[in-house]
Amino acid sequence: MMPDLQTIWLDPQDPSTVWIIDQRALPHELVHEPLKTTAQAAAAIKEMHVRGAPLIGATAAWGLYLAMLEYQGAVDFDNYLVRVVDQLQNTRPTAVDLFNALEASRLRIRAAAPHERIAVARQAAEDFATASAAQCRAIGEHGIEILRNIAATKPGETINILTHCNAGKLACIDYGTATAPIYLAHEQGLPVHVWVDETRPRNQGARLTAYELAAAGIPHTVIVDNLGGHLMQHGMVDVVFVGTDRTTRQGDVANKIGTYLKALAAHDNGVPFYVGLPTSTIDWTIRDGLREIPIEERGGEEVTHIQGRLNDKNQWVQLTPDESPGLNYGFDVTPARLVTGLITERGICAASEEGLLGLFPEGRR
Amino acid sequence: MMPDLQTIWLDPQDPSTVWIIDQRALPHELVHEPLKTTAQAAAAIKEMHVRGAPLIGATAAWGLYLAMLEYQGAVDFDNYLVRVVDQLQNTRPTAVDLFNALEASRLRIRAAAPHERIAVARQAAEDFATASAAQCRAIGEHGIEILRNIAATKPGETINILTHCNAGKLACIDYGTATAPIYLAHEQGLPVHVWVDETRPRNQGARLTAYELAAAGIPHTVIVDNLGGHLMQHGMVDVVFVGTDRTTRQGDVANKIGTYLKALAAHDNGVPFYVGLPTSTIDWTIRDGLREIPIEERGGEEVTHIQGRLNDKNQWVQLTPDESPGLNYGFDVTPARLVTGLITERGICAASEEGLLGLFPEGRR
Repeated sequence: MMPDLQTIWLDPQDPSTVWIIDQRALPHELVHEPLKTTAQAAAAIKEMHVRGAPLIGATAAWGLYLAMLEYQGAVDFDNYLVRVVDQLQNTRPTAVDLFNALEASRLRIRAAAPHERIAVARQAAEDFATASAAQCRAIGEHGIEILRNIAATKPGETINILTHCNAGKLACIDYGTATAPIYLAHEQGLPVHVWVDETRPRNQGARLTAYELAAAGIPHTVIVDNLGGHLMQHGMVDVVFVGTDRTTRQGDVANKIGTYLKALAAHDNGVPFYVGLPTSTIDWTIRDGLREIPIEERGGEEVTHIQGRLNDKNQWVQLTPDESPGLNYGFDVTPARLVTGLITERGICAASEEGLLGLFPEGRR
Repeated sequence: MMPDLQTIWLDPQDPSTVWIIDQRALPHELVHEPLKTTAQAAAAIKEMHVRGAPLIGATAAWGLYLAMLEYQGAVDFDNYLVRVVDQLQNTRPTAVDLFNALEASRLRIRAAAPHERIAVARQAAEDFATASAAQCRAIGEHGIEILRNIAATKPGETINILTHCNAGKLACIDYGTATAPIYLAHEQGLPVHVWVDETRPRNQGARLTAYELAAAGIPHTVIVDNLGGHLMQHGMVDVVFVGTDRTTRQGDVANKIGTYLKALAAHDNGVPFYVGLPTSTIDWTIRDGLREIPIEERGGEEVTHIQGRLNDKNQWVQLTPDESPGLNYGFDVTPARLVTGLITERGICAASEEGLLGLFPEGRR
């Protein structure tokens, strides 16, 4: 089905081209798209050719590399750098990886000699990607313990995991964040089955998570976002794994719209609710997610229309009456009190300032 | 936009034909469908040409009238009656109006002389419809008090009501159950705005509630089912109004899948959560909704595919990869503890046995 799920890479023959998968066409078409300019990279983020917090960060870092290639020397470099960082940053407001990746690249570029800037920007993008992949792998290794513990309580039975949106390979560089433990568990022979929330309005679950899981041969079932509560009421969910686009120092998490509803249902039914995250999604500067995390508002047409396959191609259909507007916020905030634990590359901790600082003492200030 | 929202009626020229709106084609096409046989009536219920608890009940009662027209006298009548009641009953398992309407008609038909059966069945169907419309009107009159009380706390400001699925005119004979107070409030000049959950998988909100509200000129916005929790966290919802397909004697309610998630969010944010219901949805024989209400499972293709308008006609598109199955339960149960109150035709009561029996002493046994 899919030979290669690498989400972003520099063309090995042509170092002026960064390749991505245009994820808007999945699962029905696998479209590779070349990025040759900063503007193209910014558009790819804003219009969700790429999405998922770590991948947004990586794309921004590669966008800065393309900006170094584009720099002609005519304008003041410092101003230029501010402008291109702004351009890449003003694409999506919620995922903090974007800002973290850009800031790391920017600092290294600014410190570099002029003739080294291209190589440094390239190295920074590669480093972000390498670190992110390693973090995802580590998240998987810590998270699998949760699945092993569940398996121990019901030997031989299937472990049912519910996930919302896509926090898998397609959101990252490799493995995924929240789904990393699932991939590892499957590789190691644990019997897992995934309930895939379709995740309206953009259907990242039905389109991307289902595609990834099918490719990996992992048993899964697509469900509407309305169903998860019922499944939990009836003991059909052992654990919930989701990702996060921004995690505050007290452990609140902003994730795809609807995550909060699943956290409430998990809490009401005693189902553990875990959030997988690489360091890059932690925002140490804020505490109260509900008040402080900016929530992206996107176009209402993502609500009133939907894309699917008809006659072997992707087409959009209108769902609503012409007279009815749609409103579309991309994320909601799940308060730390509803989160059983955070799965990070350094281990699992409580969703609290104490928990996070225990693993990340560098967050103290 | 829509001249006539009558949902079911006997042809005034041809008493062998019952007319319905085939609601599957809304909002993009208004299709009237004739029912001439019991089998057609049963299929219209099962395949959701009609839906909504009261309308299902009315369609079943009219189906029994058609069965009386079809009866040829060759087989034993009592056996025939059992068979056609079964045929109409075995269409959808969750809404109890279906059983209540059929039982009321059946008893009257059985007591009638053979030459009166057709007239009695017709009268029983008309009586169910008349009673249901009157109950909906009364629900509206009781429910509007809730909106008036909210209006008093924020004079001149818009009252934001969230609703899930369709509990409006199209679910009933007239007015609707949960939306009746909204229509009345709008008629009486209260400034209301409705958040319309799209209500996957069948999108009764995006297709039917939005259509009704647009036709009535009531301000509304369609949202994905994932959004309501976020809106409640941010004070953007004053009250939730939903319907119910079956209400137990302790006040648990089965309603369209996803209702439970909204009830949890309302509870978590101190937003009042009301359920509007005519008597016909009360099932006095059961207590614990989670254990005792049978939940309909429908085809997975309602999850993996969706219908919308493309090139001016209704078309189905596929949302998921070919390899990914869908699972589709139609309803979930909201426990009484999450329900602020039940709005019935006799007034508003607590969602509890005591509350219900206070208004419906005939429920004692």
